[in-house]
Amino acid sequence: MFAHIARKVQLCALPSLICIETGEQYKNIDTCSYIWRQLLAAGADRQTLLLNLGGGVVGDMGGFAAATYQRGIGFIHLPTTLLAQIDAAIGGKLAIDFDGLKNMVGLFRQPEAIFADPFFLATLPTRQLRSGYAEMLKHALIADPEQFAVLDPDTLPRTEAHTWGQDPREVAAISRAAAIKMAVVRDDPQEKGRRKILNFGHTIGHALESWSLVRQPNDPLLHGEAIAAGMIAELYLSQQVAGFPTAQFNRVATRLRSLFPQQMIKTACQAAFNGDDLFWHALGKDKKNVGNSYRFVLLRQIGSPIWDIEINQQDIKKALAICREWASN
Amino acid sequence: MFAHIARKVQLCALPSLICIETGEQYKNIDTCSYIWRQLLAAGADRQTLLLNLGGGVVGDMGGFAAATYQRGIGFIHLPTTLLAQIDAAIGGKLAIDFDGLKNMVGLFRQPEAIFADPFFLATLPTRQLRSGYAEMLKHALIADPEQFAVLDPDTLPRTEAHTWGQDPREVAAISRAAAIKMAVVRDDPQEKGRRKILNFGHTIGHALESWSLVRQPNDPLLHGEAIAAGMIAELYLSQQVAGFPTAQFNRVATRLRSLFPQQMIKTACQAAFNGDDLFWHALGKDKKNVGNSYRFVLLRQIGSPIWDIEINQQDIKKALAICREWASN
Repeated sequence: MFAHIARKVQLCALPSLICIETGEQYKNIDTCSYIWRQLLAAGADRQTLLLNLGGGVVGDMGGFAAATYQRGIGFIHLPTTLLAQIDAAIGGKLAIDFDGLKNMVGLFRQPEAIFADPFFLATLPTRQLRSGYAEMLKHALIADPEQFAVLDPDTLPRTEAHTWGQDPREVAAISRAAAIKMAVVRDDPQEKGRRKILNFGHTIGHALESWSLVRQPNDPLLHGEAIAAGMIAELYLSQQVAGFPTAQFNRVATRLRSLFPQQMIKTACQAAFNGDDLFWHALGKDKKNVGNSYRFVLLRQIGSPIWDIEINQQDIKKALAICREWASN
Repeated sequence: MFAHIARKVQLCALPSLICIETGEQYKNIDTCSYIWRQLLAAGADRQTLLLNLGGGVVGDMGGFAAATYQRGIGFIHLPTTLLAQIDAAIGGKLAIDFDGLKNMVGLFRQPEAIFADPFFLATLPTRQLRSGYAEMLKHALIADPEQFAVLDPDTLPRTEAHTWGQDPREVAAISRAAAIKMAVVRDDPQEKGRRKILNFGHTIGHALESWSLVRQPNDPLLHGEAIAAGMIAELYLSQQVAGFPTAQFNRVATRLRSLFPQQMIKTACQAAFNGDDLFWHALGKDKKNVGNSYRFVLLRQIGSPIWDIEINQQDIKKALAICREWASN
């Protein structure tokens, strides 16, 4: 992953390259300081434009570095992963992780532009593609039953995943997923209300991801993998609390089962269920919480989300047990 | 210096204190990380309000920490120094220093409110008061000949400086200085044009300050002290390039001479004149520069600034020599 710098006035005439390591574990203040230092070394000034070519980590951190370098220079996202193309690059959320907590330091700022080319998806390993697919499915679950029907089951990225994203139906599904995100964000750019629905699957998912980054640092869960597990857990809570139909829950659970690393998810859920502080600390620090309660986005049915729903620790444990079981079959 | 946290809904009911060391040398990413960590430890969430009680360093860094914690929580400035009350707290500029360069990382964001009480000025050492006075004088020089006449010579903070700021005339002058800053900032919040006039004295002043922070770390020049020196140098350039009246230059130079630490300023100007890389590097990294030129705000006369004026290295050296001479008399 890398990022380009160019002057707006002579785009790409004399670009400088800043390369960073791949992976969420590098989305921290140290890498961000490295980017600021490289910008300084390259003589970047307030007219400099930073091009963030890479996945979600490059967009989140490159955007944050740009938005704070000399109190803010312009930046363009060139997302290369499915996850970034349909989710991370859209909406102006920029952040780094801090003390092992996801996106704890950041801000809101829109890029000058986003250019998403499905061509890049051919460069992705299957595991990365599936990670992005989890977010596509989430967008459909929270806002678009019709897209859910399209995604399920024909367009799942299975064995020939390396060609996924080139077929016109797949490109259409990607555009639609990006459009869902854009529509939600446009209604509520600062996440005062409805934008919270994008966090479906993320309350437990983020905490599992935070746990995994510390406990499995050499091979952590990818973002979408943790979110897939989080969605199973939160769909279960939706079923228990919000009347989400059991048949739909089973359908989603069955579809997702073979797509994600079951052993890793099982281990993470087991640790969380057993009370590993790391998970519960991360859950407690979730930005969606207010004070000491755990707040969730739940679904009444596909396309009908509700938010700010308080759930107690015991019910969260039940959901973790269900998710563990899901990953064991 | 310290900062308060309170919940908006129960202001000051259960505040947590975050204390940081005093001085520009602590306005860095390490102290900022400490603030983020303390906010986390205090359980701060998106509803938390950070109260920045202190001088410019607390406002700049506390504001930056708040504006980036969980992508931005609210903050209120309670400036306790003259410099912060008339300048630093106003305008939404937030920043930390980076790799020894002033305000290299930051952003623009307005506080929820600013409460400035001259009562706090009675707690200031004379040197701090005079540092703020340099910025008051700058506001008058760039925008308000009438205020300049008031400030000169009756309200100079001289020997009884510890009572300065309590007299109604002094309070009026403080309010007027704050109003000048507010008016300039309101016209151009993002510093696209006219707001640049606030940087009068700061091109050379900031570089001298950056130099001093590294070369005299135990007793560096205060911000206003470096700016006073920068104003002498840039008034000289104004006289050479923009027709600023010589009589006015002499008047300002004479008034300011005994107020600031002459030996320290002389040493800094001498080092810069002799070509110390640290100074020229900092000057080259000034955010007002575009590409490789040095750009200045200059005055045609008091209250008539011009900006984006290019000055070459040789003329800057002459200005440093004049400033060194000024500090030697």
